[in-house]
Amino acid sequence: MDGAGEQALARLLQARVDSRTKPLGSLGALESLAVRLGLALGSATPRLRNPHLLVFAADHGIAAAGASAYPPEVTRQMLRNYAQGGAAINVLARQHGIALTVVDAGVRRAVPDVADAAGAASVTPAGARLLERRIGDGTQDFRFMPAMQAAQREAAILAGRELAAECLRSDANALLLGEMGIGNTASAALLLHRLTGWALADCVGRGSGLDDPGLERKRALLAAAASRCPAALGPLELLEQFGGFEIAMLVGALLEAASRPCVVVVDGFTVTVAVLLASRVDPRIGDRCVYSHCSAESAHRRLLDLLGARPLLDLGLRLGEGSGAALAWPLVESSARLLVDMASFESAAVSTRVG
Amino acid sequence: MDGAGEQALARLLQARVDSRTKPLGSLGALESLAVRLGLALGSATPRLRNPHLLVFAADHGIAAAGASAYPPEVTRQMLRNYAQGGAAINVLARQHGIALTVVDAGVRRAVPDVADAAGAASVTPAGARLLERRIGDGTQDFRFMPAMQAAQREAAILAGRELAAECLRSDANALLLGEMGIGNTASAALLLHRLTGWALADCVGRGSGLDDPGLERKRALLAAAASRCPAALGPLELLEQFGGFEIAMLVGALLEAASRPCVVVVDGFTVTVAVLLASRVDPRIGDRCVYSHCSAESAHRRLLDLLGARPLLDLGLRLGEGSGAALAWPLVESSARLLVDMASFESAAVSTRVG
Repeated sequence: MDGAGEQALARLLQARVDSRTKPLGSLGALESLAVRLGLALGSATPRLRNPHLLVFAADHGIAAAGASAYPPEVTRQMLRNYAQGGAAINVLARQHGIALTVVDAGVRRAVPDVADAAGAASVTPAGARLLERRIGDGTQDFRFMPAMQAAQREAAILAGRELAAECLRSDANALLLGEMGIGNTASAALLLHRLTGWALADCVGRGSGLDDPGLERKRALLAAAASRCPAALGPLELLEQFGGFEIAMLVGALLEAASRPCVVVVDGFTVTVAVLLASRVDPRIGDRCVYSHCSAESAHRRLLDLLGARPLLDLGLRLGEGSGAALAWPLVESSARLLVDMASFESAAVSTRVG
Repeated sequence: MDGAGEQALARLLQARVDSRTKPLGSLGALESLAVRLGLALGSATPRLRNPHLLVFAADHGIAAAGASAYPPEVTRQMLRNYAQGGAAINVLARQHGIALTVVDAGVRRAVPDVADAAGAASVTPAGARLLERRIGDGTQDFRFMPAMQAAQREAAILAGRELAAECLRSDANALLLGEMGIGNTASAALLLHRLTGWALADCVGRGSGLDDPGLERKRALLAAAASRCPAALGPLELLEQFGGFEIAMLVGALLEAASRPCVVVVDGFTVTVAVLLASRVDPRIGDRCVYSHCSAESAHRRLLDLLGARPLLDLGLRLGEGSGAALAWPLVESSARLLVDMASFESAAVSTRVG
């Protein structure tokens, strides 16, 4: 859509919002969201269809140095939990009828008991579909060398693109994005620092629950990594130096989503950093994104402000795995349904405001 | 449950929350909510069953004096909209599978085309069940006389009790409460002023969207009403002097809910004032209530703080009709489902945190 077409559609959407049988503006943030959804889908009567949550999981070399409150093997253990249906995201996806695919983007040690070898799907009735798209056996420790090679970065981005394209097939238009990986808020914090120039200490948070000494350790690890490679780098070079395989796949999925009419529901801190990075490559990404929540990770609010985002929820969540996106999904759907399904003042013969 | 039993259950619930496969505390406000739901239902594995939204509608004598941005006939017109399924609350109730009953508690001029005469139900396939429990043809203008008579107040409370009891029959344990009535934030503001002693001007907001002169007019109308009857009054006397039939029915429904294990999802400003008033009669009410959202009505946040409430949503909503309660309902349900359905670290063989 060109700029003039977009402005005309925005006016049409706002007029539809204002003519529904409710006091002007009384649905608050759900009204601006409805306009946003209409623009993202290129429709004055946007309907969300077949939502699909992609959770990308991978391990990080930096985790072995103690960048997280949990040991690195938890990433692999949680893959099994997703497949068996016992994780938070399984519960939420079942509740809301959201298709759930968990992607092994590079979790340390293959898990043959929950995913088969050649990239095919494995699933239990109550659990997630588990896909293998392993780029490596975790990233390298980015204090000493690039987290990944350029070819790995490109393979991860391509895999993310292909998976998003599969989710956004012709009868679907809503993609939810999440991640899991012990150590990945460390990677995301470093990327945020380098993308924005904000002080590193301000970008680093407690992740899954570091105490004060743990937080200091995480900051020191990341300061060492940052000093290894101080040169100015573009977004994709930063991804190679400091990223994770799951973050690279998120970037790929976002780049794919930017190329077509769809809505992307963004989960927490790590996914939002992926949005910032990907939007430096393709600025159209911003128009597709809905921000589900402001997490407890300390830099998330400032990052959301930078993106001009107004998150739907503010519940102190810091779980990841797409849980915030899934929790906010009914609100996103409500916004579209209210716009499309409510009666107008005229059709319902209700009087409008005085004066 | 006695105090010791309640403390034991609270410990059991917290231990269950903490043993689920997620970083400690990472579900934020949904964790304390899960404990609250368990205590309200008297169960370590609370399951919410058959949610029912009661929307009480009535007219207010004060509305004719210009206390609202919308003309008084809108209350009646909206009843028809509810019955036909075109209002926001219809859309949301359908989305979430919430049973919806709209109660005519005293809307001006009977509406024979949408509700039959003898209190029986009338419903269209997509619309709400509409019940007649008319206490009067709107309240009196409380600037000049009590809004209702004592017998009317008692009849309204009894009707609210009976309706809540019907919704909370043996296979149901979740009640959502909403209201509709042109002028009812005026009544609620005056009740709040008298229940708390807060300055009247601080209690009065823009309701469905008054402009500055309208807000000044509303304040002046309420100041006149307050000065008619300056004596200290108990909560039920205040209800008689300044209440509305829908507020009295809300109070009745809350008193009934307080007497049994159940969860009450509270909508916006007017319902929250009803909670404050009812809890002065029966303090057990507070333990049943979950607060869905902080509305745009100016005094709502302070009132929530007074009640020690942490609302789930903060989206600038100011529609009423139970819309905030319905929008927050999936979060309430998620909280219970996560507590009950997630695997534990032990059952899923996931490592717990380091140290």
